[in-house]
Amino acid sequence: MGDIPRSHPRYNSLIGRKLLTEAAADGLLAASALIAHGRGEAFDYLLGEQTCASARRAISEAAKRLINAENPVISLNGNAVALAADDLIRCAAVVGCPVEINIYYRTPERMAALLKRLGERKEFVAQGKAPEGWSNQHEKRLGNWRTAVESVEILGAEPDGLIPGLEGPRANCCKNGILGADVVLVPLEDGDRCEALVALGKQLLVIDLNPMSRTAKTATVTIVDELMRCSPLLLKDILDGTSSQTEKWENDANLASCIAVMLDSLPQPN
Amino acid sequence: MGDIPRSHPRYNSLIGRKLLTEAAADGLLAASALIAHGRGEAFDYLLGEQTCASARRAISEAAKRLINAENPVISLNGNAVALAADDLIRCAAVVGCPVEINIYYRTPERMAALLKRLGERKEFVAQGKAPEGWSNQHEKRLGNWRTAVESVEILGAEPDGLIPGLEGPRANCCKNGILGADVVLVPLEDGDRCEALVALGKQLLVIDLNPMSRTAKTATVTIVDELMRCSPLLLKDILDGTSSQTEKWENDANLASCIAVMLDSLPQPN
Repeated sequence: MGDIPRSHPRYNSLIGRKLLTEAAADGLLAASALIAHGRGEAFDYLLGEQTCASARRAISEAAKRLINAENPVISLNGNAVALAADDLIRCAAVVGCPVEINIYYRTPERMAALLKRLGERKEFVAQGKAPEGWSNQHEKRLGNWRTAVESVEILGAEPDGLIPGLEGPRANCCKNGILGADVVLVPLEDGDRCEALVALGKQLLVIDLNPMSRTAKTATVTIVDELMRCSPLLLKDILDGTSSQTEKWENDANLASCIAVMLDSLPQPN
Repeated sequence: MGDIPRSHPRYNSLIGRKLLTEAAADGLLAASALIAHGRGEAFDYLLGEQTCASARRAISEAAKRLINAENPVISLNGNAVALAADDLIRCAAVVGCPVEINIYYRTPERMAALLKRLGERKEFVAQGKAPEGWSNQHEKRLGNWRTAVESVEILGAEPDGLIPGLEGPRANCCKNGILGADVVLVPLEDGDRCEALVALGKQLLVIDLNPMSRTAKTATVTIVDELMRCSPLLLKDILDGTSSQTEKWENDANLASCIAVMLDSLPQPN
């Protein structure tokens, strides 16, 4: 695919495709992961490949809920690791929560490849500089940037819990991760698992480009946006975040506004 | 993915995904082919995963144009071979035209894998029974079913022509195939190549689930439908076909009706 200049109007989309095909070649993804990415591309096309105002509000809401959670966790699958590992590790560092690799088509090879990759990205992020917005306040609570990142636990290698209502390996999870969490941020979640986790009384914060998907409709807060594009915004909001109480959130209404943006992008009949 | 029962409401979509991931494992596809398939899935979702009336009209129009062509050809890429090789070979047999493998990311390995697969499918189709609608009329013109299928030339192994206006390997094609054709049926074509072929004065009959794509908007006749679903319908129309002259075809109007179907499928704002 060669080098893609930053100035390209579809830079984000082309980079995403590059990262995904590379991750597939590296064994990080299930066979259907690229198809799922393509479905997302089509919905992003209808969004004009930009973060709409409703998505922006959902990002802020998700940030608030992560900050106010008792036991938050960020759940990652192969596509999420391929597209946004660095920013999601940064989010976990600032929230002070673990990340858990939790994949639908679980094989030992893919789990090992993802754990290795995520460990490498964590080290990279720890050695890099703190993101803009990182303050003395954060240092006081979490130590310096390097310490904060190195404190992010990477879970998933040894699942010791089962999500009730799911069968087979896809039910596996960690007690001190997803199973024990009150708030789960999970980009690109499967519908079955989203429903099962919500049924456990957890708050599910999801990132899904299809506002009509079962996941989008079941989640507590649905960010209808592209993962590479919204992750830095989520990080910014987490860094800026106050401990203010969460206002009433109407997820259905937010989804409806995202659908309205897509409707507007389709050529109207005469 | 296991066995998918015929009765499953999303049978076609799940089988398509299975065929594509298997074809990828067999080396028939470029890295981005699965992503392209996923984009199609999203648009098909908006179509309700069924052939809309406008697509049905476009299928009939394409059949008429193939029948009335001087030198028709059916151009196939990896996804088309994976999803609908058998029916498209049947179409070529009844039209009495060659098929040409013409892929965007051309490598010797993929060309060899596709030629081998298509040869196998041709043999399978030749040994099978003639499709419903195959008549004495067809026998008189083409010989018996087996002969008709075995007469379908598979081109693409040794391209001896270049499509003007395209650079690199993607310009390669055959003089007695795409380059010499007046009518080209090409499922899932790239926008650049569609434009270059239309600029040569050819009629392009395309199958594309995104009615807003450059290919959809540039082609002479655009079938906005899923390839596995529309191929048997195209075959039926070719078998039924008379030599009646083509009526005035308004492709833009047909695309607009397909977009209207998608608009109707999106939940309307209150």
